[in-house]
Amino acid sequence: MRIGIFGITGVVGRELLKLFEDNYLNIPFNDIKIYASNKSVGIKIKFRDEELIIDDYDELTFNNLDVIFLCTSSEVSYQIYKMAKKYNCLIIDNSSYFRMFNNVPLIVPEINGNLIKENNLISNPNCCTALLTMVLYPISTKYSINKVIVSTYQSASGAGYQGLNELENQIKDIYLNKKCDTSFFGSQYLMNVFSHNSNIDLNNLYNDEENKIMEETKKILNKNINITATCIRVPVLRAHSESVYIEFDEEVDINEIKIKLNSFNGVKILDDIDNNKFPEPLKVENKNYVLVGRIRYGVNKKSISLFLCGDQLLKGAALNAYQILGYKINLNL
Amino acid sequence: MRIGIFGITGVVGRELLKLFEDNYLNIPFNDIKIYASNKSVGIKIKFRDEELIIDDYDELTFNNLDVIFLCTSSEVSYQIYKMAKKYNCLIIDNSSYFRMFNNVPLIVPEINGNLIKENNLISNPNCCTALLTMVLYPISTKYSINKVIVSTYQSASGAGYQGLNELENQIKDIYLNKKCDTSFFGSQYLMNVFSHNSNIDLNNLYNDEENKIMEETKKILNKNINITATCIRVPVLRAHSESVYIEFDEEVDINEIKIKLNSFNGVKILDDIDNNKFPEPLKVENKNYVLVGRIRYGVNKKSISLFLCGDQLLKGAALNAYQILGYKINLNL
Repeated sequence: MRIGIFGITGVVGRELLKLFEDNYLNIPFNDIKIYASNKSVGIKIKFRDEELIIDDYDELTFNNLDVIFLCTSSEVSYQIYKMAKKYNCLIIDNSSYFRMFNNVPLIVPEINGNLIKENNLISNPNCCTALLTMVLYPISTKYSINKVIVSTYQSASGAGYQGLNELENQIKDIYLNKKCDTSFFGSQYLMNVFSHNSNIDLNNLYNDEENKIMEETKKILNKNINITATCIRVPVLRAHSESVYIEFDEEVDINEIKIKLNSFNGVKILDDIDNNKFPEPLKVENKNYVLVGRIRYGVNKKSISLFLCGDQLLKGAALNAYQILGYKINLNL
Repeated sequence: MRIGIFGITGVVGRELLKLFEDNYLNIPFNDIKIYASNKSVGIKIKFRDEELIIDDYDELTFNNLDVIFLCTSSEVSYQIYKMAKKYNCLIIDNSSYFRMFNNVPLIVPEINGNLIKENNLISNPNCCTALLTMVLYPISTKYSINKVIVSTYQSASGAGYQGLNELENQIKDIYLNKKCDTSFFGSQYLMNVFSHNSNIDLNNLYNDEENKIMEETKKILNKNINITATCIRVPVLRAHSESVYIEFDEEVDINEIKIKLNSFNGVKILDDIDNNKFPEPLKVENKNYVLVGRIRYGVNKKSISLFLCGDQLLKGAALNAYQILGYKINLNL
């Protein structure tokens, strides 16, 4: 199996390469190649004991690859797809471009991996969506969810290296009493929070990030639930958090919900009431699982509230893409 | 009018003194005295062109005061109340001790100032409650609210100087690559978020902060609405934010809601969709108003979502207490 990672200079591409370096699923691959835009061609990146060199690509590239991961913008993903589609390679796309296409499966392997059949194009969901569905799905196998209200606490990593660097640099700026550089986000990020910096859709006044969560969650859970999202960036580097309120068609039992969450691969509960220890983004950095806690009834016994955290770059992006390939070739996650 | 501020060494007490220094309501007072626990007695604090000296207090103190502000813990507020009650002074208490007492009005002047009658004891609400009700109330004058789901993004100031100092010191620690001092909050605060560090009530698994919001909001709005809160601390110094989802008994008109909010004294709308500019905690530091934006329909036309920010120390605490006195003596806010 010959693997190609496109967008290797981005934060998700790099995380994906690290996953193949460790390769905990023992995915059998012979060769891994890395690609980026012209300006990065020739740069060397360490991989195990060798050095990979960032390559350029053209139509012929795809004849020599079996699996390609697109860690690229929607536009670039579409351009690469057009070049690659006539070849027989499997495309796993991290961008939002194809996610809502009816004929493209949108996959969280633990939830709907069974939808992966002969498809040569598979979409990887939005980071918040992946984390949220990992918690909603096991609950939905026991109780019928009809409404979800989610407020996010999103980290800088979702905005790539530029976002991460701007946040980190503000520590220096503030420590040295300098004016913060806010050229990327447009607002001071450290010691502040702000509404997600994606475009607002004038049709419903939700931003793109919120609309992704709302639409993709319904597609992955395969249910037309009522869902509304508010996406807020908080000054955290790498992991996202979500405050989630859920309503059901029937009264639910909190203990049954905990049993479902506990037995679901990829979810851990941290609900230590005595010591006031609950999920925190720092606790899930570099962890493969989603951490969930503060599980309690909402306004009545037909509703619950909970708080979850997960690594935006792992289950929220690169890990899920890597697991899609593992699932496709019948490996246990 | 002789005024006494108790708990002057705390962050709310100091903010209240600053409000009297500026005295924008022109509250007519002849004398202002400041009090704290024994260990601070004798410390001088600048007030306009004079220096006030922190004094100790005993039963006799209250014979020489007309209005006392308690910026103290619940326990200390109760102790002072017991000493002061036989005298004729007006007590405005910032602590949670008396808030849910049936015979004690819990006041946000713009909303229910009319409940202040001959009472000599008035409670000032929880910071998140005050900010939330400032937005819920004007909406409730037009539409019948039946459910509120709120997730908070709370700043360090709510935890007083110790909380503020721990957060600020972590900037230095992280910049210098030192291990963060987490002795106050128990978790790293900078670059992290965590569930509010108050006790969890084993009866409903909500923490004290969440229960305050849920109970006090119903008391102030004088309506038994369904409400659930999730309180999360974010690494912000001074202002709180809240993501609020509201359901109504009827379909609502977003424009009518904006009109109601816009015309309510103490609330401003910032909903600049074209430039992606919405409320941020840094934008309301040292501001008297609550800033609200991202106003849009929720899961249908019988629900809305919005995002609000307000200065935790001003409308969330000291300003509201100061305004209670203004209202009591018939001044326009």
